[in-house]
Amino acid sequence: MGKKISIAVIRRLPRYYRHLSELSSMGITKISSTELSKKMGLTASQVRQDLNCFGGFGRQGYGYQVESLFAEIGAILGIDRDYRAILIGVGNLGSAISRYLSALSPFFSLVGLFDIEPKKTKVAGKEILGMNELEGFCKKEKPQIAVLTLPPEVAPEVADRLKKCGIKGIWNFSGGELKGDVPCENVHLADSLMILFYQIGGEK
Amino acid sequence: MGKKISIAVIRRLPRYYRHLSELSSMGITKISSTELSKKMGLTASQVRQDLNCFGGFGRQGYGYQVESLFAEIGAILGIDRDYRAILIGVGNLGSAISRYLSALSPFFSLVGLFDIEPKKTKVAGKEILGMNELEGFCKKEKPQIAVLTLPPEVAPEVADRLKKCGIKGIWNFSGGELKGDVPCENVHLADSLMILFYQIGGEK
Repeated sequence: MGKKISIAVIRRLPRYYRHLSELSSMGITKISSTELSKKMGLTASQVRQDLNCFGGFGRQGYGYQVESLFAEIGAILGIDRDYRAILIGVGNLGSAISRYLSALSPFFSLVGLFDIEPKKTKVAGKEILGMNELEGFCKKEKPQIAVLTLPPEVAPEVADRLKKCGIKGIWNFSGGELKGDVPCENVHLADSLMILFYQIGGEK
Repeated sequence: MGKKISIAVIRRLPRYYRHLSELSSMGITKISSTELSKKMGLTASQVRQDLNCFGGFGRQGYGYQVESLFAEIGAILGIDRDYRAILIGVGNLGSAISRYLSALSPFFSLVGLFDIEPKKTKVAGKEILGMNELEGFCKKEKPQIAVLTLPPEVAPEVADRLKKCGIKGIWNFSGGELKGDVPCENVHLADSLMILFYQIGGEK
């Protein structure tokens, strides 16, 4: 690889990955930067620039090999690993995200669910453990990812505990912003909805 | 107002709104751009620049009035209206999002749920209607927003129908990208997860 890829390019890679997966499932083996850019709503020069960052896939006039580009982008993103995750806060949203994640198996395993109120009913085939079991569970099962579907006011404290448990990344649905040195990817549902409100009815 | 606000600034407004709401609930009435920027992880000059876009809230050396700034940002985003929404695709994710949206009442009303398989069980207190009832329902109830929690392959066709039904904005969880002239705000859960994978284990 060599060259360092900017985070702006990285943030576009899942979109390439998604479109290439679609092309591949349609049996398309080769695509030009112009065709790919049209499909993605980007300019062809943007596509060439992005894909040049990790070098050597396209040949002038030949286009890109869909399969190898798809595999390479997957490898850059680190999708071809085996991730183990826990989820904390099994309310409505937590239950739904649990089921969503369970469907990603086998390359992603949701190994444990936690809640301040451990329940007897299973969600996504898993029992719900109490927060007092968190440290012992992590020591034994070694998850790398924690999904936070809990209220924003408790998220920072839980994130601190997770760091000590050796968690490497947090997928944060709590609505708050987490500080600290564990990489965190926020999904701000309320923010997204407000942007939609603006597009419909806000001041222009 | 006068000045046109760029979409980059608009995209940051929900974050200001969230932080100001928190300050307000803590009883804080005034905040300087330096304090606000620290809280938000931005630079003070960025905060001043952003808030200058819609003019006249801060006075040099006096700081911002939390309540009036909060109200003004809410008005710009169009939060102070009454939105009516329908949701299409009541699977696991759709059920969760329905419950999430029901909790936003009264300024947001989820007025109808639809699925290719209408069910007898209610979700979020609402019965689930069949897709054949969509046009009639919209004519009568006049929702402005449609939430799509359905598979990507059917999303474009449903979006076309929604446009004809007078829908003004789509909150899209389908994972695909919608073309067309109805404003659409995408929540790409899979993309967000891939970015987290990269931060944990991808090539750097």
